[in-house]
Amino acid sequence: MSTALETLKSRLADVNALHSAVALMDWDQQTYMPHGGADARAIHTSTLSRMAHEMFVADETQKALQGATPEGPDDEALLRVVKRDLELATKLPSKLVEEKTRLASVAHEEWVKARAENDYASFAPTLARMFEIAKEEADHLGYTDDPYDALLNQYEEGGTAKDVRAMFDAIRGPQVELVKAIGGQPKVDDSILYGDWEEAKQREFTLMLIKEVGFDLERGRQDTAPHPFCTGWSIGDTRLTTRFKPYIGSAIFGSMHEAGHGVYEQGSPEKWDLTPLAGGVSLGVHESQSRLWENIVGRSLPFWKRFFPQLAEKFPVLSGLGAEGYYRLINKVEPSLIRVEADEVTYNLHVMVRFEIESAMLKGELDVKSLPDAWNAKYEEYLGITPPSDADGCLQDVHWSQGSIGYFPTYTMGNLLSYQFWTKLQEDLGDTDALIEGGEFGKILGWLRDNIYVKGRSMPPKDLVQHVTGRPMDAKPYLDGLKEKYSDLYGL
Amino acid sequence: MSTALETLKSRLADVNALHSAVALMDWDQQTYMPHGGADARAIHTSTLSRMAHEMFVADETQKALQGATPEGPDDEALLRVVKRDLELATKLPSKLVEEKTRLASVAHEEWVKARAENDYASFAPTLARMFEIAKEEADHLGYTDDPYDALLNQYEEGGTAKDVRAMFDAIRGPQVELVKAIGGQPKVDDSILYGDWEEAKQREFTLMLIKEVGFDLERGRQDTAPHPFCTGWSIGDTRLTTRFKPYIGSAIFGSMHEAGHGVYEQGSPEKWDLTPLAGGVSLGVHESQSRLWENIVGRSLPFWKRFFPQLAEKFPVLSGLGAEGYYRLINKVEPSLIRVEADEVTYNLHVMVRFEIESAMLKGELDVKSLPDAWNAKYEEYLGITPPSDADGCLQDVHWSQGSIGYFPTYTMGNLLSYQFWTKLQEDLGDTDALIEGGEFGKILGWLRDNIYVKGRSMPPKDLVQHVTGRPMDAKPYLDGLKEKYSDLYGL
Repeated sequence: MSTALETLKSRLADVNALHSAVALMDWDQQTYMPHGGADARAIHTSTLSRMAHEMFVADETQKALQGATPEGPDDEALLRVVKRDLELATKLPSKLVEEKTRLASVAHEEWVKARAENDYASFAPTLARMFEIAKEEADHLGYTDDPYDALLNQYEEGGTAKDVRAMFDAIRGPQVELVKAIGGQPKVDDSILYGDWEEAKQREFTLMLIKEVGFDLERGRQDTAPHPFCTGWSIGDTRLTTRFKPYIGSAIFGSMHEAGHGVYEQGSPEKWDLTPLAGGVSLGVHESQSRLWENIVGRSLPFWKRFFPQLAEKFPVLSGLGAEGYYRLINKVEPSLIRVEADEVTYNLHVMVRFEIESAMLKGELDVKSLPDAWNAKYEEYLGITPPSDADGCLQDVHWSQGSIGYFPTYTMGNLLSYQFWTKLQEDLGDTDALIEGGEFGKILGWLRDNIYVKGRSMPPKDLVQHVTGRPMDAKPYLDGLKEKYSDLYGL
Repeated sequence: MSTALETLKSRLADVNALHSAVALMDWDQQTYMPHGGADARAIHTSTLSRMAHEMFVADETQKALQGATPEGPDDEALLRVVKRDLELATKLPSKLVEEKTRLASVAHEEWVKARAENDYASFAPTLARMFEIAKEEADHLGYTDDPYDALLNQYEEGGTAKDVRAMFDAIRGPQVELVKAIGGQPKVDDSILYGDWEEAKQREFTLMLIKEVGFDLERGRQDTAPHPFCTGWSIGDTRLTTRFKPYIGSAIFGSMHEAGHGVYEQGSPEKWDLTPLAGGVSLGVHESQSRLWENIVGRSLPFWKRFFPQLAEKFPVLSGLGAEGYYRLINKVEPSLIRVEADEVTYNLHVMVRFEIESAMLKGELDVKSLPDAWNAKYEEYLGITPPSDADGCLQDVHWSQGSIGYFPTYTMGNLLSYQFWTKLQEDLGDTDALIEGGEFGKILGWLRDNIYVKGRSMPPKDLVQHVTGRPMDAKPYLDGLKEKYSDLYGL
């Protein structure tokens, strides 16, 4: 006779196998699947997703969870995580989930068209319904202060609108000021970084980089996809994708970013492999790791003192820049319209606009009709530029059309946490510039693994931040870090 | 309220999604999966296979099948096919299936080791148990005349040992005679076909070939794998793999072979996509299509009159051969030890040895201890050569270690049927040499599609052969075809 705990674990293993199948089907669709496979793939993934959901929320799972007696701290953590996941999965009525799924698929098509034709009005009614659904979701999930809390909590356990506001209040002033100060300096001409870069050489170079920083290619791989992502099935199989663009930094920093997600997944404890305790704890913490490797390590001067010679060997046209020159160009700051192309300094300002708008929409303080004007006003206020069209303005992101409302702030959390973790790492490891220039990435990765990755999902993200850094999420290390780096770069 | 037929179809769709997941996981494992993913992959595929099996044999499926009322001939065919599949799936006790699965995994390791060390004795006890299991399987599946019938029927519906014996009796004498006659002629020196052929050029050339003959790369792709295979998920997504070896023919004829399987799958009717009626009807008929494109088309003179110039352009070292010279070399006949490297004429003799041995083992007329001697005696009798070791003899094939007993004859059925179908095709289309040399493969493929592929699995294979050619499987077209081709080649 199985115990309730064994029954629970066995059901979770079945659910894990189904999710793994869907994840492989998604990976395959974005990398290798021939065009003609799309219809069948949609049927297969939706069928398997439904089966996984049915199996997870079934009475048998609920009963097994209720009856399960933990046999130690790992089991306690498992039960806590499963209880949370199960509550989230069951609180939303399946009718609402179904409507949202159907609407999202329609909305995506409408969004693509509206963006292409710069026709916000055609998309507005669907967007309005999507926000209504988000409000209904929040009601079903439940909240005390703000409907936003219920939505954000899905992506970032325990995250609240209040936290997010405090976070943005802390950085808004200094970031806008820094952007303005940089704007007063001479413009950086980085046109040499644009060209027809040979794909095979970019691939070799980025593979070398991610391997050097510690992404294990025996337990992972890198492929090409239209939009870079990281996915995986076990600590033995975590995969990245990248893409090749005319800007030489696209593949390089995109690869470093995804490798940051990848080393987090690869560093998850083996004992939790294939269970709900495996992998990264939240979107914010996950993003802190990708941003740490992309920005703090990858866009640093010591990093390029180490790797610029190899880059210049592959692309001799760049060799005249030298490591220092290249470092200057890849850290060019300039307010721009498109979030995904924004530099490190202006990035959060884009996120802030989105958070403020989605938050106001949820509260009914802003309606879809007024959204484009509100968007443009905020771009003028925070970035000093006005989008010439809605296509380059409020229609640029895919997220709301998918129903991902309450998700944007995790990008900024990741930015802040990357510096907060790094500051603690520096306290423990000392001269990180020397480590980076010396290629001793194993020491950096080892610290991250021992302090963060090894916890998997066993601690809620807020507890993890407190545990690792001795304090809650804090903007200071981030603001100090940016100020130091860019004052030096721009002679402020 | 759903009808029983609707319930059945819905359950079959779920089973199809699960099988698709396992097939994608298998494809991925053989093409792109990093080494470290193997353990998790084994867990995921076995979990999903178990779920698919449980869902298929469940009472709900059985009841839905019993209660289903067909609404037309398609439904009638569906119910017939599902009834057969379900009977096969339920007749074997799960305890036996489990033991076989476990033994197969042990046996595979033992077989690899035994082959590498030429140590048949170490593998013999496991092989003995595998044959006992095969006998038990036959008992559970049921048969009238011969336990072999029950096993073969799993691979080839309605196939019997009697058919197989008649087939081999019909070809044994003429094939052995033809091989002897060729052996009396001067040896062909094909050493120029061995070399260090550039992989990228081989890939380009084989992709061009399979596209030319009609494999649709919008609905399929070709990757590299250690052992070539064809797999798929829908008529919109059928995939081939190939491999690159020092023999120039390996990738070329391997690709043509797999593309033959591929065009069969791609030609399945859209209305049956993702249902049990989709795809190829049996292993024998499937193999007839791969062998038709590989041998009858791909190893013909008109084919190389058309494509040799492009081959010589990629590999100029071959250009001196000309189409005729190349045609001679790729059709070199020579008795050899290894089945998978055998030429068209000697191939069936290898299969015959295996059938006769597995058949005698099942009846208890031969024991595992005597197997190597029996093997070697038959190689001497049919091919005129004696294996110098068991590694090159009875240990060469993976099949028995996997428990695939009763499967080998489908290779020879495929060879015979390829010529039988081709003869009928020639009656209908006329001068096929002109079609091939003119690159009019669409006409050939069109005939195959309209006469064979369009039937999917709706007719049992024997009925299909009768329907298409007006007679049961028949060795004459095959023997006539070989005799004509090789008499000409070897001046007999």
